[in-house]
Amino acid sequence: MADLAPAGHSAAPPRVDAPAKVTGTARYTADVRLPGMLYAKVLRSKHAHARLISVDASRARTVPGVHAVLTRDELDGIAPGYGYFVKDQPVVARDKVRYVGDVIAAVAAVDEATALRALELIDVAYEPLPAVPDIDAALADGAPVLFDKAPPGIVPPYGTGASALLRPRPNVCYEFRYETGPDDVWAECDHVFTDSFAFSRMNHFHLEPFVTVADVRGEQIEIWTSTQNPFPLRKELARVLGTAESKIRVNVPFVGGGFGAKNNCKTEPIAILLSKIAGRPVRYCLTTEEGFLTMTQHSAIVTVKTGVLADGTFVARESKVLLDAGAYSDGSPLVAEKAGYRMPGPYRWRHIKSSCECVMTTTTPAGPFRGFGAPQATWASESQVDMIARRLLMDPYELRVKNFKALGEPFVPGESGIDSDMREGLDLVAAELGYHSRERMPNRGMGLAVSLKDGGGVNKPATARVKIATSGDVYLSCGTVEIGQGAHTALTQVVADVLGCPREKVVYAPINTDITPFDQGTNASSGVAVMGQAVQRAAEDVKAKVLEFAASRLDCKAADLTLEGWAVLRGEEMTPLTGLIHGSFGGTGFEFTGEGFYKIATSHEAPLEAQCVFWENGWAGAEVEVDPDTGKITVLQLVASGDVGKAINTLTCRGQDEGAAMMGYAQALFEEMRFSDGVLLNGEALDYRVPLAEDLPRRFVSITQEQGHGPGPFGAKGAGEGAMVPVAAAIANAVHDAVGVRITQLPLTPERVFTALHGFEE
Amino acid sequence: MADLAPAGHSAAPPRVDAPAKVTGTARYTADVRLPGMLYAKVLRSKHAHARLISVDASRARTVPGVHAVLTRDELDGIAPGYGYFVKDQPVVARDKVRYVGDVIAAVAAVDEATALRALELIDVAYEPLPAVPDIDAALADGAPVLFDKAPPGIVPPYGTGASALLRPRPNVCYEFRYETGPDDVWAECDHVFTDSFAFSRMNHFHLEPFVTVADVRGEQIEIWTSTQNPFPLRKELARVLGTAESKIRVNVPFVGGGFGAKNNCKTEPIAILLSKIAGRPVRYCLTTEEGFLTMTQHSAIVTVKTGVLADGTFVARESKVLLDAGAYSDGSPLVAEKAGYRMPGPYRWRHIKSSCECVMTTTTPAGPFRGFGAPQATWASESQVDMIARRLLMDPYELRVKNFKALGEPFVPGESGIDSDMREGLDLVAAELGYHSRERMPNRGMGLAVSLKDGGGVNKPATARVKIATSGDVYLSCGTVEIGQGAHTALTQVVADVLGCPREKVVYAPINTDITPFDQGTNASSGVAVMGQAVQRAAEDVKAKVLEFAASRLDCKAADLTLEGWAVLRGEEMTPLTGLIHGSFGGTGFEFTGEGFYKIATSHEAPLEAQCVFWENGWAGAEVEVDPDTGKITVLQLVASGDVGKAINTLTCRGQDEGAAMMGYAQALFEEMRFSDGVLLNGEALDYRVPLAEDLPRRFVSITQEQGHGPGPFGAKGAGEGAMVPVAAAIANAVHDAVGVRITQLPLTPERVFTALHGFEE
Repeated sequence: MADLAPAGHSAAPPRVDAPAKVTGTARYTADVRLPGMLYAKVLRSKHAHARLISVDASRARTVPGVHAVLTRDELDGIAPGYGYFVKDQPVVARDKVRYVGDVIAAVAAVDEATALRALELIDVAYEPLPAVPDIDAALADGAPVLFDKAPPGIVPPYGTGASALLRPRPNVCYEFRYETGPDDVWAECDHVFTDSFAFSRMNHFHLEPFVTVADVRGEQIEIWTSTQNPFPLRKELARVLGTAESKIRVNVPFVGGGFGAKNNCKTEPIAILLSKIAGRPVRYCLTTEEGFLTMTQHSAIVTVKTGVLADGTFVARESKVLLDAGAYSDGSPLVAEKAGYRMPGPYRWRHIKSSCECVMTTTTPAGPFRGFGAPQATWASESQVDMIARRLLMDPYELRVKNFKALGEPFVPGESGIDSDMREGLDLVAAELGYHSRERMPNRGMGLAVSLKDGGGVNKPATARVKIATSGDVYLSCGTVEIGQGAHTALTQVVADVLGCPREKVVYAPINTDITPFDQGTNASSGVAVMGQAVQRAAEDVKAKVLEFAASRLDCKAADLTLEGWAVLRGEEMTPLTGLIHGSFGGTGFEFTGEGFYKIATSHEAPLEAQCVFWENGWAGAEVEVDPDTGKITVLQLVASGDVGKAINTLTCRGQDEGAAMMGYAQALFEEMRFSDGVLLNGEALDYRVPLAEDLPRRFVSITQEQGHGPGPFGAKGAGEGAMVPVAAAIANAVHDAVGVRITQLPLTPERVFTALHGFEE
Repeated sequence: MADLAPAGHSAAPPRVDAPAKVTGTARYTADVRLPGMLYAKVLRSKHAHARLISVDASRARTVPGVHAVLTRDELDGIAPGYGYFVKDQPVVARDKVRYVGDVIAAVAAVDEATALRALELIDVAYEPLPAVPDIDAALADGAPVLFDKAPPGIVPPYGTGASALLRPRPNVCYEFRYETGPDDVWAECDHVFTDSFAFSRMNHFHLEPFVTVADVRGEQIEIWTSTQNPFPLRKELARVLGTAESKIRVNVPFVGGGFGAKNNCKTEPIAILLSKIAGRPVRYCLTTEEGFLTMTQHSAIVTVKTGVLADGTFVARESKVLLDAGAYSDGSPLVAEKAGYRMPGPYRWRHIKSSCECVMTTTTPAGPFRGFGAPQATWASESQVDMIARRLLMDPYELRVKNFKALGEPFVPGESGIDSDMREGLDLVAAELGYHSRERMPNRGMGLAVSLKDGGGVNKPATARVKIATSGDVYLSCGTVEIGQGAHTALTQVVADVLGCPREKVVYAPINTDITPFDQGTNASSGVAVMGQAVQRAAEDVKAKVLEFAASRLDCKAADLTLEGWAVLRGEEMTPLTGLIHGSFGGTGFEFTGEGFYKIATSHEAPLEAQCVFWENGWAGAEVEVDPDTGKITVLQLVASGDVGKAINTLTCRGQDEGAAMMGYAQALFEEMRFSDGVLLNGEALDYRVPLAEDLPRRFVSITQEQGHGPGPFGAKGAGEGAMVPVAAAIANAVHDAVGVRITQLPLTPERVFTALHGFEE
């Protein structure tokens, strides 16, 4: 059994949503029921790539119990496609299908069985085209192209050194580029190393499926949906449906996990259009298997050329990341931007040149995923740092420490300073692992890795509102979705801390875009560092208003009063607020409201036209034992750490860090979506290898660092991604340390290790 | 067919909720469906008054499909009673039942039929007690008392001249008193007239029944309910259930009419307790017949003693109003306060003394009703004014005009000034009726009446919020419930007018007490005059913020900019806002938020510790023909008018005025709940005589006055009650003018007229 060592922090109150979730009373989108609600199912492409000759749904429309059928014939007035930057994904296939699973038609019926029966009666004639199964195939000369005509797209304005291109070549929808520092420094390098790495493709595997309940009444569209980003979703839906944002109301109940998958349009457009056709509410809920056909992480090929001095000083790095974007662009351009931008890692360079391309293949579309490009970049960067150390006969620990940027040193010119002491974190992990005191034993080894990602989102404004009722009960309203990360717990705690009230007094209001204050989305670990600041300010604002009110009633200055529980203290004199409020507002009382706004100051000097809010840094150390006869890796120890700045709730932070580390661990050793000629081979829970409890490292320690340099409430930063990103490289580095072979392709399966050891072709 | 003359106003845009309501897509509480939802029905007392010996529900609990049974045995921890001031109404009967229809037990089952079957298996043993059928019986010496022990209650603090007593005598739960001016002026009067009037009891007859869907999950209580006052309801529910307000979330969808009935606890406590017991959501929806057993208007006996000079100058008035409060106090003390306070009418007096008692009888509880005490007071006052005129051989028109308070003259010392020119309104109505040019014809006559009520509620704070999305779409959030009065239409129009945007851009957000800004309730015609001011300020606040933002981007002062559509104009230069916002906040944009607050300044000089927000004044004129052989009254003309100050939407105001006048007309001639020994005789739609289209006056004119003196947006006041209040007295006065008999009891049925004409005993 794994040794689940405690994180060493003081006790923290349990999650506020735990009772509802444990007792099953928590309501998710899948629980929504509306009068007359229908159930939707879809028909998916059997071909990885084909022209659609005909789609005949006439027989399906006659099935009793069928109320709506949606095919390409029902798309009048609907935008050709959706997507973050490139609007290339149709609501249902129009001219072509581009991957196995692409949606061709949808049916809403009185129950799912009826809908499925009707789908079987839809006749589709295809003209099969050659599949484009992977990056190499997509970029080969004369490769079949996925899009005959370039879909419309935009490139946002970038600051100094950064730029992007739409469709720079066939089957590439977007390329991000960044360059800083003079490129003549290459001549000064004593060594230049070029290495390539392959990064595997995981499924988000959120336990709650993609699901939407749509209720279209006349022009009014109301949805309940499992999304991370209600406001951006509202905007995109308005564009796709050709209606005003004000006609679309988005409600977001509890979300059972997102990990980046639940952004932009997923089940929403089909649910809405079916509801509009049927004139009844429609519930469209995918199966787990359909989730595999909807959204994935990006596999990648990363080539890194690094120049160093003989003493190990880093000089220059040039990198090219090729992301497998799948059949539609979704968030790929954003991921590309981040993967490319983060290639330098937390090190000092004189020259950096990065490019990242989104390569279209006839596979499941890829998009945002925990880490957002940093896992791909870090896998390559931290593997290569280790390789360079060994080539230079240096300790990889020493090489890292030698090249770390100092606390506060800008990541690149114009960008925010690194807000963790990288060495402090690495020393903590190394010490916990026993890195410096290890004895060499056969087939055993240790590895380290570090990572960084700019956190909090780009240019991100957040607003929050806190109101206090006459009773002293407090209501927090903001757009951060509870996706399991503990937002309800952390943000209500911020309010309680500011107001000095019990956390139980603070209600987290439901999210409804008509009323909820605006937020750009629940992503980029922004919950505490970005929204938390807006929440803190809202709480301070309402506290000031309460004190001003009390001062006006007590004929004194607000500065003479302090808030103590639900009373004000003036010198020794305590005056309960409830009575004061009734005295002024009558028996029904009143509510005070405070507003909070936060947005990082925009810097035109910064490459991405904004400095990042904070740096989410991660450290990992692993000790492994490799069985040379089988290639099987046993992780004896895994130490993973993120710096959260200040833990608002240590229990929740630890949960985030542990979950993140386990996702990194899964990527290192187990999970990979495997395609054969565009057909997914392991697209269901039984075949897809999520680590089980018995797969855990023998010893697993999560260290939640609180270095205190965050911009958020009380010094907080974000959490939940940092501890994932470096894990795979740490394990690969440990494998090399153990048996002297370098695996450059994830996951580190026994086959790959065995092949590397014994030279068999894979 | 009646001549529905146009109101003479310019065209107004149709109601914003019309499409949804006409097409049936509008969602009411009755439309809410939740997973696993159960259906509730209740067992009601068959006795008007009885001690409950035993309630045995053991057989009901065993019925398959029954999930919860609520009797007095399940009330642990629940407050003994609810009510506005006097907490006397139990959730289900405890020791006694006090009227036919009192709830004894409730069952939640898989459907209503199962619940009804289970109710039949509940055995109740009663010890019958004598009924207390009416005011006279309740006040008789030795009358049976409804409450053995005084239920707890409070008396709010009153200002100058006003006071109240809890239970001043048996079967009276509350007495309101008001006095101003020296009482020695009686000696100066040339005539003193004392007359008594009986006022009938109407049912509110809201088309949507009382209905609640409750969803209790652990400690969390969420309800969807048909209420006018979500925030006060939340407060009272928390008290009754012994929980924190923050544990209760109140959602209010469209409400299909309230007319005052949908205040405080109605179906909510039973739905919640059943849901708590069952662990599943519960829908509790009454039938129309059960509505008759839940809440009614107050019948009343009003005695008025008025002293005048020989020339008709009013000097002093002393009045006593006895309200039949039914079995539980509900809002009776508030209605008593208003009925007593409004007895002076819009006239100048040197002495006023009023008292109003709430008399408890074993009949359906009475509470707030359109007009809120003013109909009872006005029926008596305006009948007597007419009687006095005829006794003094003066024209009733002249007597009124002689004694009207001037525009701006305080109603009583410390109170707001009358904000309509009463004579201007009366002249309009008289002219429309042809009052001054009429020819005398046999059995035909004309009558006038005027009325006033203090509007907007007491001490009422209101808050509102307006947010504007990047697209220019606008969201208004406030606690005013759309109960059919047109709040959505009027308040979105206020926002559109302030922002200069099309009304279609403005969304009225749903009401949810966790998020919606606080409001004291949808009553007292406060929608426009009180909430409208908060809404106007919120719109002005957000407009200022948008201009400040634009100024900061355009490097100028906000004062240099004007808002034109969704752009700012600076001199000749127009800059669209969407681009400016994206430039500052990135691709997802932003939303600006404004807040508005309104509360009338409290005056400790005022009798009710606040000046009223505005005066809702009404005028009515009627021409009738009386058939002396049958007593049947034919209304040849009815002219009714309210002064709305300024019509935000003339169509909606006209709808309110016409509906109000028709409710007054119904009370004058048709509707009356008739009890016999405590048993309601006509408690269903077929027996209860609502006027039909064919019952309309031959000519009906509604005049929406816009005198412009209101405190609300653009000079608006409230609407919807003024035109109802004087109608009954105007018709009775016309009957006297026609045939010389004075009917002092409503409604003016043919029997009563015939009896008055021919002297038969009724």
